[in-house]
Amino acid sequence: DFLHALEEVHPSFGVSDAELQLCVQNGIIPFSDNIDRILSDGSLYVEQVKNSKHTPLVSVLLHGASGCGKTALAATIAMNSNYPFIKLISPESMVGYSEMSKMNEITKIFNDSYKSPLSVIVIDSLERLLDWVPIGPRFSNTILQTLLVLLKKQPPKGHKLLLISTTSQKNILQEMDMLDAFDAEIYVPSIKSLSSIDIVLKEIELFSDSERSYAMKSISKEIQSNYISIGVKKLLMIAEMARQDDDKVSKFVSTLLMEPSMMAKNKY
Amino acid sequence: DFLHALEEVHPSFGVSDAELQLCVQNGIIPFSDNIDRILSDGSLYVEQVKNSKHTPLVSVLLHGASGCGKTALAATIAMNSNYPFIKLISPESMVGYSEMSKMNEITKIFNDSYKSPLSVIVIDSLERLLDWVPIGPRFSNTILQTLLVLLKKQPPKGHKLLLISTTSQKNILQEMDMLDAFDAEIYVPSIKSLSSIDIVLKEIELFSDSERSYAMKSISKEIQSNYISIGVKKLLMIAEMARQDDDKVSKFVSTLLMEPSMMAKNKY
Amino acid sequence: DFLHALEEVHPSFGVSDAELQLCVQNGIIPFSDNIDRILSDGSLYVEQVKNSKHTPLVSVLLHGASGCGKTALAATIAMNSNYPFIKLISPESMVGYSEMSKMNEITKIFNDSYKSPLSVIVIDSLERLLDWVPIGPRFSNTILQTLLVLLKKQPPKGHKLLLISTTSQKNILQEMDMLDAFDAEIYVPSIKSLSSIDIVLKEIELFSDSERSYAMKSISKEIQSNYISIGVKKLLMIAEMARQDDDKVSKFVSTLLMEPSMMAKNKY
Amino acid sequence: DFLHALEEVHPSFGVSDAELQLCVQNGIIPFSDNIDRILSDGSLYVEQVKNSKHTPLVSVLLHGASGCGKTALAATIAMNSNYPFIKLISPESMVGYSEMSKMNEITKIFNDSYKSPLSVIVIDSLERLLDWVPIGPRFSNTILQTLLVLLKKQPPKGHKLLLISTTSQKNILQEMDMLDAFDAEIYVPSIKSLSSIDIVLKEIELFSDSERSYAMKSISKEIQSNYISIGVKKLLMIAEMARQDDDKVSKFVSTLLMEPSMMAKNKY
Amino acid sequence: DFLHALEEVHPSFGVSDAELQLCVQNGIIPFSDNIDRILSDGSLYVEQVKNSKHTPLVSVLLHGASGCGKTALAATIAMNSNYPFIKLISPESMVGYSEMSKMNEITKIFNDSYKSPLSVIVIDSLERLLDWVPIGPRFSNTILQTLLVLLKKQPPKGHKLLLISTTSQKNILQEMDMLDAFDAEIYVPSIKSLSSIDIVLKEIELFSDSERSYAMKSISKEIQSNYISIGVKKLLMIAEMARQDDDKVSKFVSTLLMEPSMMAKNKY
Amino acid sequence: DFLHALEEVHPSFGVSDAELQLCVQNGIIPFSDNIDRILSDGSLYVEQVKNSKHTPLVSVLLHGASGCGKTALAATIAMNSNYPFIKLISPESMVGYSEMSKMNEITKIFNDSYKSPLSVIVIDSLERLLDWVPIGPRFSNTILQTLLVLLKKQPPKGHKLLLISTTSQKNILQEMDMLDAFDAEIYVPSIKSLSSIDIVLKEIELFSDSERSYAMKSISKEIQSNYISIGVKKLLMIAEMARQDDDKVSKFVSTLLMEPSMMAKNKY
Ligand SMILES: Nc1ncnc2c1ncn2[C@@H]1O[C@H](COP(=O)(O)OP(=O)(O)OP(=O)(O)O)[C@@H](O)[C@H]1O
Ligand SMILES: Nc1ncnc2c1ncn2[C@@H]1O[C@H](COP(=O)(O)OP(=O)(O)OP(=O)(O)O)[C@@H](O)[C@H]1O
Ligand SMILES: Nc1ncnc2c1ncn2[C@@H]1O[C@H](COP(=O)(O)OP(=O)(O)OP(=O)(O)O)[C@@H](O)[C@H]1O
Ligand SMILES: Nc1ncnc2c1ncn2[C@@H]1O[C@H](COP(=O)(O)OP(=O)(O)OP(=O)(O)O)[C@@H](O)[C@H]1O
Ligand SMILES: Nc1ncnc2c1ncn2[C@@H]1O[C@H](COP(=O)(O)OP(=O)(O)OP(=O)(O)O)[C@@H](O)[C@H]1O
Ligand SMILES: Nc1ncnc2c1ncn2[C@@H]1O[C@H](COP(=O)(O)OP(=O)(O)OP(=O)(O)O)[C@@H](O)[C@H]1O
Ligand SMILES: [Mg+2]
Ligand SMILES: [Mg+2]
Ligand SMILES: [Mg+2]
Ligand SMILES: [Mg+2]
Ligand SMILES: [Mg+2]
Ligand SMILES: [Mg+2]
Repeated sequence: DFLHALEEVHPSFGVSDAELQLCVQNGIIPFSDNIDRILSDGSLYVEQVKNSKHTPLVSVLLHGASGCGKTALAATIAMNSNYPFIKLISPESMVGYSEMSKMNEITKIFNDSYKSPLSVIVIDSLERLLDWVPIGPRFSNTILQTLLVLLKKQPPKGHKLLLISTTSQKNILQEMDMLDAFDAEIYVPSIKSLSSIDIVLKEIELFSDSERSYAMKSISKEIQSNYISIGVKKLLMIAEMARQDDDKVSKFVSTLLMEPSMMAKNKY
Repeated sequence: DFLHALEEVHPSFGVSDAELQLCVQNGIIPFSDNIDRILSDGSLYVEQVKNSKHTPLVSVLLHGASGCGKTALAATIAMNSNYPFIKLISPESMVGYSEMSKMNEITKIFNDSYKSPLSVIVIDSLERLLDWVPIGPRFSNTILQTLLVLLKKQPPKGHKLLLISTTSQKNILQEMDMLDAFDAEIYVPSIKSLSSIDIVLKEIELFSDSERSYAMKSISKEIQSNYISIGVKKLLMIAEMARQDDDKVSKFVSTLLMEPSMMAKNKY
Repeated sequence: DFLHALEEVHPSFGVSDAELQLCVQNGIIPFSDNIDRILSDGSLYVEQVKNSKHTPLVSVLLHGASGCGKTALAATIAMNSNYPFIKLISPESMVGYSEMSKMNEITKIFNDSYKSPLSVIVIDSLERLLDWVPIGPRFSNTILQTLLVLLKKQPPKGHKLLLISTTSQKNILQEMDMLDAFDAEIYVPSIKSLSSIDIVLKEIELFSDSERSYAMKSISKEIQSNYISIGVKKLLMIAEMARQDDDKVSKFVSTLLMEPSMMAKNKY
Repeated sequence: DFLHALEEVHPSFGVSDAELQLCVQNGIIPFSDNIDRILSDGSLYVEQVKNSKHTPLVSVLLHGASGCGKTALAATIAMNSNYPFIKLISPESMVGYSEMSKMNEITKIFNDSYKSPLSVIVIDSLERLLDWVPIGPRFSNTILQTLLVLLKKQPPKGHKLLLISTTSQKNILQEMDMLDAFDAEIYVPSIKSLSSIDIVLKEIELFSDSERSYAMKSISKEIQSNYISIGVKKLLMIAEMARQDDDKVSKFVSTLLMEPSMMAKNKY
Repeated sequence: DFLHALEEVHPSFGVSDAELQLCVQNGIIPFSDNIDRILSDGSLYVEQVKNSKHTPLVSVLLHGASGCGKTALAATIAMNSNYPFIKLISPESMVGYSEMSKMNEITKIFNDSYKSPLSVIVIDSLERLLDWVPIGPRFSNTILQTLLVLLKKQPPKGHKLLLISTTSQKNILQEMDMLDAFDAEIYVPSIKSLSSIDIVLKEIELFSDSERSYAMKSISKEIQSNYISIGVKKLLMIAEMARQDDDKVSKFVSTLLMEPSMMAKNKY
Repeated sequence: DFLHALEEVHPSFGVSDAELQLCVQNGIIPFSDNIDRILSDGSLYVEQVKNSKHTPLVSVLLHGASGCGKTALAATIAMNSNYPFIKLISPESMVGYSEMSKMNEITKIFNDSYKSPLSVIVIDSLERLLDWVPIGPRFSNTILQTLLVLLKKQPPKGHKLLLISTTSQKNILQEMDMLDAFDAEIYVPSIKSLSSIDIVLKEIELFSDSERSYAMKSISKEIQSNYISIGVKKLLMIAEMARQDDDKVSKFVSTLLMEPSMMAKNKY
């Protein structure tokens, strides 16, 4: 059952639970060792905040390519913490907000967290929260400065706070002097091997075993090198498209090979 | 009867029907195999959204040169879906709106869609919705960021949403990091062969058969190579201009050859 | 009588009549064949909009150098159409308007036109309507985007609209991606020959016949090549200045030759 | 009496009389033939507007270096016209105005002028009215566009308007496409000869005749070439400074020679 | 007891005491001679303001790399002054403020200080107060100009004021012409020797003596050169992370060596 | 008594007296001949405005390096004028003002001055009034344009006005075309000789005579060349710092030599 990872998530009694669950819609498929490492590194920071007397505030940045699973993993770490206060700050919940309303909402969530003895806040998709666009470039300096200060602002005496952020634009954060504001970074890699793809395909039960093995062989033959790279999110999307087709196997194989990052021998 | 393609369109009981019909004013003339392929690819995404349990949100981008028929095709796919909620977001319906009103209108249509179990939204002419102008360049970052988030925002549990956008400025969307926000792309080519022109001319009954064959021969003689390219919208405009003239055939031929993309031997 | 061209203009019962008449203050002097061609091309578009079932909206751009007569010609085509709705959108009528008021006024005139079955709108001096200035460059993107959409917005079913715009900055419109929004273009040349100057001088009765012939000969002797270029508006201004002088002939000749575009042998 | 030029000015019954007089505070000293030429060219345009049936609107630009006397000459031409409506638009009268108030004030003066059958408006120091600064560069596009339109806006039928503008930044107006909006230009040169300086010194009675001749000789000896250039305004300022000194002659000579444009042999 | 430095801090009866204490959360560990020098230089300025009749206003800038201890040292100097008015201006206390509110708050604190005969204000993290971001670059010129004036504004006769600012972006302040506004600068170095690390480790009681000596030896072996550099703040963070791990020593050593500024032989 | 210069200042019955006195807090020490020259040049302009019939408005710019004494000298000239209206416009008195309030305050002071028959206004620190920052560069064009016009605006008939401005950024004013707006400039040099330093030291009674002579000798030995340069303001600050130290002489000498402009042989 490919939802098993999700089942391991113990929902806390914090307010953002439904929202956080929606971030892990398709579970956490353990397609490589990295997934475990990321989750256990996450736990370490959860423990540090809970236990250390000298570091009541710890901030961690999850970064990786578009669709590699950052949001799902950050949400999972937060839900696994069992802290009494678990909140999500995400662009999706602030569509249509003015810069000011956004800033007020963010500030409010932080102020709420200061009231709980132990809190975790997931700040999802920093580049989108900042209204970043590479043309110009433009972004909201108001939100940026607010976050830069909040990322370093000590909670009141006796209160503790863990911050988990995600971004697919780490280099932009660096240009903004924002990386310095984080205490630690965790890299989330995309899927890089055929066996990982195979694990995912098995989990989502798209094919029969023979279909799957046929599909994997076809892909293997068509790619130029062993260097492949695809986000788990994209892989799931392609699989679901293929599911609608009469000939699922060839639709899946051909669509996957059309992805530039798959390095197919014959570009479509 | 050159309106036959239009007749195949089955109007849904969604609200934007009249508006969508206006987008297909001159029907869909099947002047090449691409037209069929585009419509059937569209149907595939319509089915995926309806059926898949893992991808409740799918977003597709139709792109191609100015006047190649993007809007008419997007409207046709949407009307063919028979979804209970079918809406058009277009710059024409928001003339004179402030940036804020525009954003509110867009957000409202998305929020309405979340209430229907199954929805399709056509977002027409992205570059114009964004108030894009290459000088500067300038555009509305407010609208851009709103769309970037809405394109990825999951509808509530159990609700499904198909997004069909059009643009004639795909490269600009890329510079804005907007392409990543789409799950799939469909390319809409311009008319590229004389036989396609011939099919269109026949459909619109501009000439008698002998006139038409004479016109096609004249064009064939005057062009430098086999590489031609003209949007169906422009072709229809030239045909209608010629229709007013006493000498329809030569007016049509000369005006068409004045188009730079027709690669006429003697530039006017 | 040099006002004869004006007399041929049949005023419609549209509202902008007085304003449009003011644009043709000094009539249309037929100083070259181009004038006829432009007016008859204009008529063709007038007919297309009236008659074609497939192109209820046609937009035409008159472009040419400063003072070449664009506004007078656009106004003449519009007045000659005898459409029930004839309106002028010009920067002069919106002096002191804010960007918003301008946009509202433009939008209002278009909305009014949609109520008439058959309408023509002259949009004069696009670069000025857009508050264009080459330093920066700066312009009103609000007005630009409004016009870009209105130029392509279909009137309601059964209604028809002809748009005639003028500009002396065609290249700027190109940089703004505005040219694509027009269905057709008409080039308005400046006065390029001595015989055209002679025709104008005769019409405005500045000189006796012998004075005129003497003046033309003087000019002919002093210019370097046959390539000359002067707007009819400037020519009329110089003529009227000269009229105040005791020695009209030499004042006219010397002032005209001081114009750089006249390529005089001895620069002043 | 060096105020004789001023006495020749016949004040009209227009409203701006006191303001215009203040612009010619130190009269018009006829220090070279150019002064006469400029005033008589001015008269010619005054006559054209009054008499011509075809050019009810004429706009003239007086340009020259800082302090060369542009404002005084423009005011003199306007006051000499004896038109019933004579108004001054100047930055000094709009200190502290917002961009909008400025625009409204300018528009109001033009609208008032349209009510008089015959009007002249002096628009002083265009670059300052436009809030021009070379860093950036920055300026008020609102005022620029307002002026660009007003400079070409025909007064109502039967009404006539002469516009006289001044600027010391002609090249900037060119970069702004503003020069095209003027029908004519008049160049106002600075003082370029020692004899002109001598005429001015005589008029203002700074020295006795022998002092003056001594001063002129001293200057003549100390300058490198015959090319000198100084604005009449600066010359008057230096003369008045020297007047306070015990040794007027040497103070005048030394201060004048410190001006870079005087090309003194020994730079101070 | 590694809190001894903190205990030496004598809290004044000024208002910001709790806030200032929070800045020295982990005490001042005397890990090198620089710490003493900085604190005694600070005392000298404290005395000058109290005693000199000619310099009632003195402003000092503490600068150094991120996390080197600037804020803790500035707060310590201020608290040690025993002045009747001791205030902290910091970005953390103004999260969510508009530019105007920020400016008003800063101005208010200065105005309050002018009422006390003897005041010290700590202005923490100038670059953050200015909303500085290197992209653009952007910053609040309103806050900058306010600070530039306040840094030089004499308190009223008989009143005295010491200003202590901190920044990790001295070069940016230079580009802003802000350095000129300070009367003196104090450089705060990062930790540069292994023995300093050893002192810190001893103070925070992370390891037993043998563990510590083993850890120091391991680090010593792995670094390329003697040039190391790490902020005391980062060192404390790494120590606390390691404290959570089962194998504290290797977690500490490996994490510390992953810091680029530690110049480890084998980059992780 | 080093306050003797200050005692020579005869306070006028104008309103800004206390403020102006504060600008000359440490008197005017006559450390070089330049000080006398500047003050007597100032008097000359005071006389010109009072006496000349042709120049009712004179504007003077005092410029020089940071801390060279510009403000103190400008205030002294103004206070020495004995005019009935003496006002100071300074950034310090407008901290926290919006651009608009600043402009209104400036305009108000000028309007007040127009009511007095004889007025002097000191406009201190132009670059700061303009909110100048080199990054960008940015500045208030509103204040700039207001000052540009006010610097040239004639007071009403019979009224006279002297303007004395200061700046340490003359080159920036040039880039802004602001220098042209001044009638005259006065350069204020920094301290450039050891004997000037000696005069200042004597005046402020920091050392006994033998200490002073020892200090001067030490400095003399340590500097590389005779070219030194230090503002009197900085010199006074260093002297007062040294006064707090047990070893005043060496603290003074070492701190002074750390100034880059002192060209010490061994850089600190
Ligand atoms: N091992 C895994 N790690 C992360 N997500 C997984 C994993 N296995 C399955 N998933 C599913 O894949 C999807 C990952 O999408 P997610 O939104 O987290 O990606 P993302 O990196 O945040 O994308 P984006 O760059 O667009 O923000 C989720 O639906 C999640 O349930
Ligand atoms: N096969 C076809 N595909 C698309 N449009 C067609 C086809 N045949 C006829 N048409 C007609 O051609 C016109 C296409 O115009 P449409 O507005 O869709 O083009 P577009 O690419 O959206 O243009 P633009 O770039 O200006 O947005 C419509 O009137 C449509 O009815
Ligand atoms: N053949 C002609 N074509 C156009 N205008 C003519 C002609 N003969 C005479 N005229 C007169 O010349 C003038 C042309 O001015 P018009 O304002 O139309 O020029 P324009 O090109 O619009 O100038 P601008 O570039 O300043 O907008 C009008 O007064 C018109 O009556
Ligand atoms: N022949 C002359 N021409 C112009 N002004 C003269 C002449 N003779 C004397 N003057 C006096 O010289 C002064 C000229 O100043 P004016 O303000 O007109 O110069 P400007 O060129 O407008 O200066 P700016 O460039 O500062 O605007 C006036 O006071 C005027 O009375
Ligand atoms: N010798 C020391 N000097 C300064 N801080 C010390 C010292 N010893 C221990 N500390 C502790 O180290 C921490 C220094 O952090 P602090 O915020 O002052 O650094 P900072 O340089 O201001 O950082 P940032 O660049 O992020 O503003 C404080 O918790 C302080 O108690
Ligand atoms: N000869 C002198 N000239 C000017 N100031 C002197 C002189 N002698 C002593 N002083 C004192 O030196 C100080 C000069 O400071 P002032 O503020 O005038 O310098 P400034 O050049 O305006 O500085 P800034 O560039 O910061 O504006 C004053 O306190 C003044 O009393
Ligand atoms: Mg994500
Ligand atoms: Mg379209
Ligand atoms: Mg025109
Ligand atoms: Mg002037
Ligand atoms: Mg700090
Ligand atoms: Mg000063």
